[in-house]
Amino acid sequence: MEKKDIKDNGGNQQMLVKIGEQAKQAEAVLRNLDTEKKNQALLQVAEAFLRHEDQILAANALDVQRGKENGMPQGLVDRLLLNHARIEGMAEGLRQVASLEDPIGEVLNMKKRPNGLLIGQKRVPLGVVGIIYEARPNVTSDAFGLCFKTGNAVILKGGKEALSSNQAIVEIIQEALEESGVPRLSVQFIASTDRQTTELFMRLNQYVDVLIPRGGAGLIQAVVNNSTIPVIQTGTGNCHIYVDETADLDMAVAIIHNAKTQRIGVCNACESLVVHEAVEERLLAALKKKLDEHSVELRGDEKAAACVPGILPATEEDWGKEYLDYILSIRSVSSIDEAIAHINRYNTGHSEAIITRDYGNAQKFLDEIDAAAVYVNASTRFTDGFEFGFGAEIGISTQKLHARGPMGLLALTTTKYIIYGNGQIRP
Amino acid sequence: MEKKDIKDNGGNQQMLVKIGEQAKQAEAVLRNLDTEKKNQALLQVAEAFLRHEDQILAANALDVQRGKENGMPQGLVDRLLLNHARIEGMAEGLRQVASLEDPIGEVLNMKKRPNGLLIGQKRVPLGVVGIIYEARPNVTSDAFGLCFKTGNAVILKGGKEALSSNQAIVEIIQEALEESGVPRLSVQFIASTDRQTTELFMRLNQYVDVLIPRGGAGLIQAVVNNSTIPVIQTGTGNCHIYVDETADLDMAVAIIHNAKTQRIGVCNACESLVVHEAVEERLLAALKKKLDEHSVELRGDEKAAACVPGILPATEEDWGKEYLDYILSIRSVSSIDEAIAHINRYNTGHSEAIITRDYGNAQKFLDEIDAAAVYVNASTRFTDGFEFGFGAEIGISTQKLHARGPMGLLALTTTKYIIYGNGQIRP
Repeated sequence: MEKKDIKDNGGNQQMLVKIGEQAKQAEAVLRNLDTEKKNQALLQVAEAFLRHEDQILAANALDVQRGKENGMPQGLVDRLLLNHARIEGMAEGLRQVASLEDPIGEVLNMKKRPNGLLIGQKRVPLGVVGIIYEARPNVTSDAFGLCFKTGNAVILKGGKEALSSNQAIVEIIQEALEESGVPRLSVQFIASTDRQTTELFMRLNQYVDVLIPRGGAGLIQAVVNNSTIPVIQTGTGNCHIYVDETADLDMAVAIIHNAKTQRIGVCNACESLVVHEAVEERLLAALKKKLDEHSVELRGDEKAAACVPGILPATEEDWGKEYLDYILSIRSVSSIDEAIAHINRYNTGHSEAIITRDYGNAQKFLDEIDAAAVYVNASTRFTDGFEFGFGAEIGISTQKLHARGPMGLLALTTTKYIIYGNGQIRP
Repeated sequence: MEKKDIKDNGGNQQMLVKIGEQAKQAEAVLRNLDTEKKNQALLQVAEAFLRHEDQILAANALDVQRGKENGMPQGLVDRLLLNHARIEGMAEGLRQVASLEDPIGEVLNMKKRPNGLLIGQKRVPLGVVGIIYEARPNVTSDAFGLCFKTGNAVILKGGKEALSSNQAIVEIIQEALEESGVPRLSVQFIASTDRQTTELFMRLNQYVDVLIPRGGAGLIQAVVNNSTIPVIQTGTGNCHIYVDETADLDMAVAIIHNAKTQRIGVCNACESLVVHEAVEERLLAALKKKLDEHSVELRGDEKAAACVPGILPATEEDWGKEYLDYILSIRSVSSIDEAIAHINRYNTGHSEAIITRDYGNAQKFLDEIDAAAVYVNASTRFTDGFEFGFGAEIGISTQKLHARGPMGLLALTTTKYIIYGNGQIRP
């Protein structure tokens, strides 16, 4: 079975091929651009954002107005809205990326083979990166900055809600790049917002090396299902904290409180508590008190509900759920093995933590939990490129190929083998 | 647009889900199996192949007979055929894999963050690996060995031509695994050979972490187009050798001869010569003489054809062609920039070489050519896991994500972040 043919009545394919060819041309220059030159261009773009703030705000006002007219929910309007502070934030993001070490050009694992061949791996850009995202216009600037710093050409496809803002931002970037003497089309924007264009874009294998969707679960699933280009899947987080029978319960309450309430709508927030029966009653009594401050709704299994009044019954559906809300599910277990089995069954491969004083259980949890980040005695909220010290983040990968966990600049690179010989032929 | 629904009249989906669940169960054990135990099991399987040689040969005879009855070409029959030497080869392959260092468990880049968190990356198995391949039954044993050594469960889907051989081999492996006290279903084989099963298998995302197609361009393209599971694409090789104006022409002739004729049907063989006009006449005269020994057909552009009698005219189609045959295309260029542009346009991202004495041109070629392996003064035939010193090879990746170039054991691993804390919460 081949993928369904996609109808193309509007010349979208020709438009995409042109964009792809232009990206390839930019890529050939970017591949070997000096770090100095790249940094200068990034700083020039940052400055251009501030110089053309009025232009960005005017375009953004159009998007916001259109959104409100179409009954866009307030939360989405908030994400869409730009103001001076957010534009300054975009500029500051680019300045920070400029200050990071350039990973391109490093040669790894260089070794001499018995036949005299000198073989190493040189870190190089991926080539052309495609990014499909939703309503937040600052992603336009962030994604450009990370891709440009790593010598990649980037093709952006943003949500239609932010179309005017995105176009204004991209135009300003392109002008500043041209002024800096680097390829104007290092960043390109697909202005067509229909579904068909997105589908065609996801099959532009000849020009695009990797596709990164940034947005909700629906967007990511659609890209995974339909792209023939390799995808880096950034995923949802149904993150668990397991409180072992030896846990410091004060520490447990503090960490769960942090991981659940410090920020609600993020993928590294805790969604489910798994607790050893031996400490369940004491833990839940203290935890409920603390979480009541934020009116967190608790949904537990029978055992948990019997411990403390006010815990609602959880259903099977709760165990697999990423609430992104003031809700926490609670599962009782009688051993660490049961805890690990439960977590490995229901987690989404993001971030999982154990709270324990037991050396063996800590190591066992680190060994046996299958996730991008596994913690002992710390909040799951630390799964983040900045917290991990990468200085930047393009997303958090929950797949196992190429990059797993928070992705910094390195995730936007690949290597090629370089081989120095002096006439070797294969016997 | 979602992928087309796949009809399933035969309960294939249930069968695949069962296989997937069994693989997950095996994976949970394999993830933390001692190296010693893995090596013992590999040696026991090797021994079992020799002990049950008659059983394998009998099954193979059925495949060969069926193939001949169906008019299978002699080349394919040769690939399908097993004999004592090939079974001994399978066993020896497993012994070699047993002798390799186990990459699992190594912790990389462990660092202390300012907040006291100790963060490192632990090398772990991918999980469940799916392999789709064609007619060579020894791939069954090779793929099992590499996946097992790296703690992965593997699900194999071989070509229908080798069905009886593959089933016999897998049964022997499973029995030997059970005798060794490791999960019998560390390797499973999908016996159903219809197309629908393959299509359903390529969407078993819930159970399979990565899919590796091994075979011809048609198979690989079908998997890339239809899989929703991340794919490691092993690709075709339209490999070029560029002879620079400063080249040692004797070295050039020796390398081209080796890369073209040492083995014809392989992805790292040279398919196209790019030559600087300044040395074209001298090079082609000497080269034609040498290649005539193997009756290599030369197809050149006008300039090349004018140099030496007997060079046929090349068409546009020739530049993009992987012949896998005694044919070589020849393109004349007047500069290294023209050579690089030509190669970057027509190559398949596999292996490319320059023959030169010029320092600057050597570095320029290494920098600007976009391919998995870029050589100076050596044959492209070295792009190979064994030649690169990996001790084993699961294939040669021509994509840029995860692994690029020859893939050894490391390509079958991923990392997870492990984080040691002492109560850290995010401010």
